[in-house]
Amino acid sequence: MRGVAKTVLSAVLGTVLAFSVAQAYEVPAHEVPVPDTVSDALKKSIERGVNRGWNHVPKDAAAWNRAVANSAAHGEKRAMALASELGVTVEEGTMAGVKVFTLLPSEVKPENQDRLLLHIHGGGYVFSPGKSGIGEGVMMAAKGGYKVISIDYRMAPDHPYPAALDDAMAVYKAALEQYPADRIGVFGTSTGGGMTLALVLRAKAEGLPLPGAIAPGTPWSDLTKTGDSYYTHEGLDTVLVSYEGMIRGAAEIYAAGHDMKDPYLSPVYGDFTGFPPVLLTSGTRDIFLSNTVRVHQKMREAGVNADLLVIEGLSHAGYCMLPMDAAEARFHFGELDRFFSKYLAKKAD
Amino acid sequence: MRGVAKTVLSAVLGTVLAFSVAQAYEVPAHEVPVPDTVSDALKKSIERGVNRGWNHVPKDAAAWNRAVANSAAHGEKRAMALASELGVTVEEGTMAGVKVFTLLPSEVKPENQDRLLLHIHGGGYVFSPGKSGIGEGVMMAAKGGYKVISIDYRMAPDHPYPAALDDAMAVYKAALEQYPADRIGVFGTSTGGGMTLALVLRAKAEGLPLPGAIAPGTPWSDLTKTGDSYYTHEGLDTVLVSYEGMIRGAAEIYAAGHDMKDPYLSPVYGDFTGFPPVLLTSGTRDIFLSNTVRVHQKMREAGVNADLLVIEGLSHAGYCMLPMDAAEARFHFGELDRFFSKYLAKKAD
Repeated sequence: MRGVAKTVLSAVLGTVLAFSVAQAYEVPAHEVPVPDTVSDALKKSIERGVNRGWNHVPKDAAAWNRAVANSAAHGEKRAMALASELGVTVEEGTMAGVKVFTLLPSEVKPENQDRLLLHIHGGGYVFSPGKSGIGEGVMMAAKGGYKVISIDYRMAPDHPYPAALDDAMAVYKAALEQYPADRIGVFGTSTGGGMTLALVLRAKAEGLPLPGAIAPGTPWSDLTKTGDSYYTHEGLDTVLVSYEGMIRGAAEIYAAGHDMKDPYLSPVYGDFTGFPPVLLTSGTRDIFLSNTVRVHQKMREAGVNADLLVIEGLSHAGYCMLPMDAAEARFHFGELDRFFSKYLAKKAD
Repeated sequence: MRGVAKTVLSAVLGTVLAFSVAQAYEVPAHEVPVPDTVSDALKKSIERGVNRGWNHVPKDAAAWNRAVANSAAHGEKRAMALASELGVTVEEGTMAGVKVFTLLPSEVKPENQDRLLLHIHGGGYVFSPGKSGIGEGVMMAAKGGYKVISIDYRMAPDHPYPAALDDAMAVYKAALEQYPADRIGVFGTSTGGGMTLALVLRAKAEGLPLPGAIAPGTPWSDLTKTGDSYYTHEGLDTVLVSYEGMIRGAAEIYAAGHDMKDPYLSPVYGDFTGFPPVLLTSGTRDIFLSNTVRVHQKMREAGVNADLLVIEGLSHAGYCMLPMDAAEARFHFGELDRFFSKYLAKKAD
């Protein structure tokens, strides 16, 4: 597989060279050791090397659907085991006709009684349907004692853009009928982070009240191959590995010919003025580090209260894939808990 | 030189392999293009490729002194030209017997009349003596309309640890006789960032009042080769390039046999409890990204109000090397200005 990866990367880099031969420099091949500065759980994950499926891109819609169904079967088992372990109940339902899961911790904290977190799962607008998408929502419900509603939005290839965002908007509007906007937080990772940003951009455009706080984790803020870390962290990020695999495949099948620089697809091109407080997370090996920091810088320049975490040794979305008690997951979810606790309004407010 | 770099890196990686052969994976050689997402000035800097002097480590004290003197001659000219261009006056003096430069902008802003910024320059505890070290202080004085005192502390090889920190402490104590601690800010980049952290650790240990706010830019928080980005960004960072050059050389000649994990040398090992508000800056190509985020995470876990900026496309300390009007320098110094303006006390407070 390592040989295959090298060949594919060389092919990719040939393209790069074609337009930037006088404007690039070479980083020599190098082994990256397992850092001493991360949790044992993350060490074990890094020892396994890069995700071997990163460039197995399905070649048509039927193949996508088979790949998604296969991974969802495993994902659902893992997520339900996690819910059971953490004492989170999972209830299926619909809001405004969209499938959702209500995730309830063993105890909703008193200060969170009148608050709601909306969770938007990741998976490149193709993966993690149904219960296989709830894991991160379960972790947050348990960590902070929140009621979480996880949105099971429609996805590509059967439902390309704007179906996913339409579904998230429909659930957000339905939530607004039950909760004041300033008691609603929205969060999600990767595609879920990008959708969190797009949801607020669209709520602004539609004149809706904005959520009280949002936490887009390592957001897929640019569907095009634009941004430094798509190149600099190629082959380094153990989860996504390279744009030239699942990332490009998923971007193309979701955008389905729509302009990928539309802010509802690539929210880094949107106007963040007026956004509520934001907490962004990435990692030192994350291929979406630039997707994260470009959004952060643009938000700060627009006067938004935007905070950034970059976690040592972490690849894309790594905090969702570690046990809750690993230092990196504890840090990320602990920060999200403090963040929502600080910025979401309470009934007494 | 590229051939040389490869050979040196391979030698280094041989060592890495020796202790982590079963725990590492290989990142293939790859060209990194100039990002579309950075300023024209940064693009030009990246187009020049990596710093060709990164591994020209002087072999004895006399050779260090010659290398420092050579680079200081150029550095002083650049710094004085910058001061003149930005309308900052430079006055030589001493505080508590330590050489300092008082940097005064054309106008000290009204709200900054009774505030002081202490600047601690970078340079690996060996480079940038005298006026060659004031550039960053000049930029900050001009950007925010602050009175800045830049500390010309003693350095290796003639004055190894703890001379540099002793001098910074002496100036801080002298400043405390003129300003309440909560109107004093401390900032600096690289070694100056590490010293900013060490100064607060030592002020805590000595029971002194702490400064009102500090901004350690991409701080040299770990003098040992510990932390993910020393490895992952090897050959990528255009400024420092690799630990196995000037970094190791400077660490050894400054520490001079002292334990490099002493928090006064490697402040990441210190206890940050009780620190004032902190603003940290790094970049997506910075070999000190881990030096920065390890400090950030530890501070947040200690309950410190610590904020992080990671600037797109930037290598180590890049914001100090760009024109003031480049987007990256504007962002960094603009954030520092807002930060000190927000957190330093004023006379009326």
